[in-house]
Amino acid sequence: MRGLILNALRREGHISGEELGRRLNVSRTAVWKYINELRKKGYEIDSSSKLGYFFIKGPDLLLPEEIAIGLNTRVLGREIVYREETDSTQDVAKDLVERGAKEGTVVIAEGQTRGRGRRGRSWSSPHRAGVYLSIILRPSLKPFEVLQIPLIAGVAVCRAIESVTPLKPRIKWPNDIILGGKKVGGILTEMSAEIDRVDHIALGIGVNVNTQRSLIPWEIREAATSLAEECGEYVSRVRFIQHLLAELESLYGEFVMSGFGAIKEKWNAFDDTIGSWLKVSGVGNEVEGEAIDIDWDGALILKQKDGGIEKIVSGDITLSGYGKGR
Amino acid sequence: MRGLILNALRREGHISGEELGRRLNVSRTAVWKYINELRKKGYEIDSSSKLGYFFIKGPDLLLPEEIAIGLNTRVLGREIVYREETDSTQDVAKDLVERGAKEGTVVIAEGQTRGRGRRGRSWSSPHRAGVYLSIILRPSLKPFEVLQIPLIAGVAVCRAIESVTPLKPRIKWPNDIILGGKKVGGILTEMSAEIDRVDHIALGIGVNVNTQRSLIPWEIREAATSLAEECGEYVSRVRFIQHLLAELESLYGEFVMSGFGAIKEKWNAFDDTIGSWLKVSGVGNEVEGEAIDIDWDGALILKQKDGGIEKIVSGDITLSGYGKGR
Repeated sequence: MRGLILNALRREGHISGEELGRRLNVSRTAVWKYINELRKKGYEIDSSSKLGYFFIKGPDLLLPEEIAIGLNTRVLGREIVYREETDSTQDVAKDLVERGAKEGTVVIAEGQTRGRGRRGRSWSSPHRAGVYLSIILRPSLKPFEVLQIPLIAGVAVCRAIESVTPLKPRIKWPNDIILGGKKVGGILTEMSAEIDRVDHIALGIGVNVNTQRSLIPWEIREAATSLAEECGEYVSRVRFIQHLLAELESLYGEFVMSGFGAIKEKWNAFDDTIGSWLKVSGVGNEVEGEAIDIDWDGALILKQKDGGIEKIVSGDITLSGYGKGR
Repeated sequence: MRGLILNALRREGHISGEELGRRLNVSRTAVWKYINELRKKGYEIDSSSKLGYFFIKGPDLLLPEEIAIGLNTRVLGREIVYREETDSTQDVAKDLVERGAKEGTVVIAEGQTRGRGRRGRSWSSPHRAGVYLSIILRPSLKPFEVLQIPLIAGVAVCRAIESVTPLKPRIKWPNDIILGGKKVGGILTEMSAEIDRVDHIALGIGVNVNTQRSLIPWEIREAATSLAEECGEYVSRVRFIQHLLAELESLYGEFVMSGFGAIKEKWNAFDDTIGSWLKVSGVGNEVEGEAIDIDWDGALILKQKDGGIEKIVSGDITLSGYGKGR
């Protein structure tokens, strides 16, 4: 109901409580109660006895009812679990799975106290500055096909950035989103699986949206940035999430139907890896070579000095002369 | 302490409470209390005022202190979590992982109410008849390498069967243990992982040890059997578990150090798959061909009628002319 009232307020300019009540089939007093609830959440709503209610502005929050208005998806984000603050949206998502959460359920937090990146690293998640969300997926995949999920998510993040800013994001394989050579977002794909069957995936996406430079931990300040820092203005996190979920749903649907082949070209459009000379350090070994392609299964193909071809599915990338495309 | 008393009783024939207390540095009354606890658990212990205590026999239970006596491992089973009955040892293992359980922790249940096989199928787990256990592993593997874990476990199960019976078990790729053409055991490998790093594995092993034919669900009675049914006599589940854990620890150590190559030959010795004509049904497709080998990574290699080679990492096997080796 709060969502419906918000919707009407935003569309209408001035509207009387009586008219609002009539449209939504509730009493004027009920309308007045809902308006007060919204005000408590930080919405500024003017009211005059002559003109009725008037929407001034919303709080900068990721409330599910805000995201639902104009969300153009069928599955992703139809169920949103919202937390003002949590340890890690990934952990909340896993708990939800155990309690039977459906595919497409999204966990959103305004801030994380123990946000995670890959390999147990921390992901700085200052309050109300970025987008920190986890999506529950239950695809019929084999574990090795899951390698493709972060690539798909990367394309969705880049497209969402392009939708809400004039920026030109790029992807560093497999899962870093880059702006002007600095990291602006990351993707963490965690799965629970049998050897040949995925049970579920918790797909974590973290993007520095309005994060001010001063809020970025100093150790990574040279290597990290935010959308707002790069484009010079505030970016709506709600709109970003709406675009992100819509892009992801469309790409994910394509992937599930037709495999990664259909996505590869779209990934290439954002790629900042192919053509670079890379050092890849894995568990106890290191490979060096030119990134010449990504494989049909999402693995990186490296051509070594001696011409040898190495297929990389793991490891962290260090770069020498990285970033041909900027 | 119960374990120490059991140990002494078993070794000594008759032994007085006083002597027992002296050896274990507790009072005669404490000894008497422990003896009574053991009796309550089903141990038959005679006592006479002249000769002292005398061990008659133990209950047919998988109590951790029973398994610990003579367990020849360094890691696997040094920590045992015992349940008279549980839903599924796999689920108990996963809960333990979240509470920080160490690698090698083993969950053992006398019976499972919701024992699981692969792909969500049920695993019949009648009380005190079989061995139903889960082992927590935390190897430094990539998800696709986990495919090799059930193969290693299969070898360990076969070797343990050979140690405690005169039977000749065989393995149907990837994870069925076969006796006389019937299934006697299965392996379920569930993992939690990032795309390129395994966090932990819950390795579930179910073996019909003393399961009577009448306890095998009628739907699978033609296709399933137990060790006792095949060799015609009662088999000690405790001894079976001790051998299983020791074999698995040694093979797993070899695998972690040297990769699957070191295990492959041992697997071949029990193989009942290579040389057979197989139908493999996966998710939405079916492949038919002769199993010609397993790959270095544990995948099955199938040669189709037209000479085409197919590598199988998934799917359930249906057999035509299966079982060359029996």
